[in-house]
Amino acid sequence: MADLKIIGISGSLRKNSYNTALIRAAQELTPEGTTFEIVEIGELPLFNEDHEQDPPQVVKDLKAKIEAADAVVFATPEYNYTIPGVLKNAIDWASRPYGNNSWAGKTAAVMGASIGGIATARAQYDLRKTFVFLNVHDVKQPEVMVAQAQNSFDEQGNLTNEDTKKFIRQQLEALVELTRKLQG
Amino acid sequence: MADLKIIGISGSLRKNSYNTALIRAAQELTPEGTTFEIVEIGELPLFNEDHEQDPPQVVKDLKAKIEAADAVVFATPEYNYTIPGVLKNAIDWASRPYGNNSWAGKTAAVMGASIGGIATARAQYDLRKTFVFLNVHDVKQPEVMVAQAQNSFDEQGNLTNEDTKKFIRQQLEALVELTRKLQG
Amino acid sequence: MADLKIIGISGSLRKNSYNTALIRAAQELTPEGTTFEIVEIGELPLFNEDHEQDPPQVVKDLKAKIEAADAVVFATPEYNYTIPGVLKNAIDWASRPYGNNSWAGKTAAVMGASIGGIATARAQYDLRKTFVFLNVHDVKQPEVMVAQAQNSFDEQGNLTNEDTKKFIRQQLEALVELTRKLQG
Amino acid sequence: MADLKIIGISGSLRKNSYNTALIRAAQELTPEGTTFEIVEIGELPLFNEDHEQDPPQVVKDLKAKIEAADAVVFATPEYNYTIPGVLKNAIDWASRPYGNNSWAGKTAAVMGASIGGIATARAQYDLRKTFVFLNVHDVKQPEVMVAQAQNSFDEQGNLTNEDTKKFIRQQLEALVELTRKLQG
Repeated sequence: MADLKIIGISGSLRKNSYNTALIRAAQELTPEGTTFEIVEIGELPLFNEDHEQDPPQVVKDLKAKIEAADAVVFATPEYNYTIPGVLKNAIDWASRPYGNNSWAGKTAAVMGASIGGIATARAQYDLRKTFVFLNVHDVKQPEVMVAQAQNSFDEQGNLTNEDTKKFIRQQLEALVELTRKLQG
Repeated sequence: MADLKIIGISGSLRKNSYNTALIRAAQELTPEGTTFEIVEIGELPLFNEDHEQDPPQVVKDLKAKIEAADAVVFATPEYNYTIPGVLKNAIDWASRPYGNNSWAGKTAAVMGASIGGIATARAQYDLRKTFVFLNVHDVKQPEVMVAQAQNSFDEQGNLTNEDTKKFIRQQLEALVELTRKLQG
Repeated sequence: MADLKIIGISGSLRKNSYNTALIRAAQELTPEGTTFEIVEIGELPLFNEDHEQDPPQVVKDLKAKIEAADAVVFATPEYNYTIPGVLKNAIDWASRPYGNNSWAGKTAAVMGASIGGIATARAQYDLRKTFVFLNVHDVKQPEVMVAQAQNSFDEQGNLTNEDTKKFIRQQLEALVELTRKLQG
Repeated sequence: MADLKIIGISGSLRKNSYNTALIRAAQELTPEGTTFEIVEIGELPLFNEDHEQDPPQVVKDLKAKIEAADAVVFATPEYNYTIPGVLKNAIDWASRPYGNNSWAGKTAAVMGASIGGIATARAQYDLRKTFVFLNVHDVKQPEVMVAQAQNSFDEQGNLTNEDTKKFIRQQLEALVELTRKLQG
């Protein structure tokens, strides 16, 4: 059985982002039988439907990486109580044109980290709403919501909280199981 | 009494966007005693919190225009069942840094146009959710939701549907009334 | 292979409800290899956590029917832009107590009918949000959204719109496929 | 100037509910120049549109109390990641029939308490979404979200957390100010 190809996307461009650190932690914790590549979205232009039929190379590259993957892990910050524009912009580009939605048929897991106590709860379900249109099946349980993120990572951005590591491992295992089952 | 300053923002960068056409229609229908300036968001970079303390000039210009305004009209397309990344990116930039949220204390009206029948109903309430954090009071009724937009605009993008014009006028009047009352 | 047991739940108690009619139509269109039982929720009391450990018999009966099923079809009206209290009340009862969430591990499909054009778009995704906690995997595509329902049913509440029948059939087939795959 | 009439509604029927305790705390903290009556919703039947033109007396009483009020304070638990069915059922009844939406023109404040850290963040914005249809203007800031509620109330259900009291006072003052301004 070939390795499952997982890609990880962080919704923050901040250098010391806790969500980017979370994606790196997920990469380190990825289960046996999988590969985990981190995909960047910070160089994309703003989405313009006029260019969706022949998008810039950076968009083509993003779409190719998604299409080559089996599963996607999203780490989303919460900006203004919903998904960051940066992350939504990547989702929008890769969903187009309509006849070539690169996300279709993938599976996904959602995680998020915040400084406060809400742990991106206002953003995660908005992200999942896009999955209905995108035709992406998402891991339901467990969820990964890291509150007070500053206490869970060290100064180099390494995840040090063992409970969070356990949830990440369980979520990634659930992602693998869901993906294998849906691929039949 | 000074004119109320309204700014209009379209969430689409497509040249022949129905939502941009809707904002232009709103500009033409703006009530007496108001000015209505259309503000562009297509030249913004992707939001990066590392740069929020000293953002690019285009961001400073956007923030200045919002801060000088009394009220904002948003015309939002629906991409993947929620707010476009392009529009959210503008909201994110102008909301930062935390101590200088340019949207705070403004009033807002929300409109949207779509080809199909849903008329951006999946996006409009997600946009309104951001208003809670942004501290923006929104017109509740009437709502402006243009379904089958292709039948309501001519080929030059002029709004030809008289019912839609009436709803836009009523919504703008409600926006003026709400703004005047909240300004005391 | 045993028949898949599907149950159908309408979120409306109105006698001539289009959503109840939609569930009856789904029952008639259920694929070979399935049974489809309509489950009533109109006799439930209002949920009270004090009684969740020993709920009234009508709640126990509901929980037993859900637990015996493989999959659930929800037809939800949209009341005040989200899920009806009636439907949410049934979801709440059957999700409790925490250690005996009757919905866990089921699959689900969501449909909805409305008089206007929005076709319950503001309610369907709120319903899906509960599935994350409930641990229910939902069919993503196709969606069944019946706008102008008065034109799709005859006076006896029989579905007459062939396109809608086709979408229902496709959604039920997708539900069967999803259920079979997840059951392994 | 006559006293502002505020009514408070808890979305939980549990006897020792933290959200009911929160409404009682709000009643004690209500600003000068206001009255604050707690309104019960636990005796309502399940909403049925067939009965909306001549609803049971308990519904008529609820509608009368809302109509006599200037402003509403909601304390909502989060059940299955959104509004409790119990609370939504009350909203649905009082919104009907369409031509006599009892909520129209009221102002509202939203609060919520939970055992865990999320503090009803997944429910509060769904509740606010109903306000668009209901034509209710809501206080945006401050928000009242009580996490780890068990640490903020004593065994008799009295609010003991001074920070939470401060937020409640500020929110109620913002509610009074919003109501006064909108009443002109």
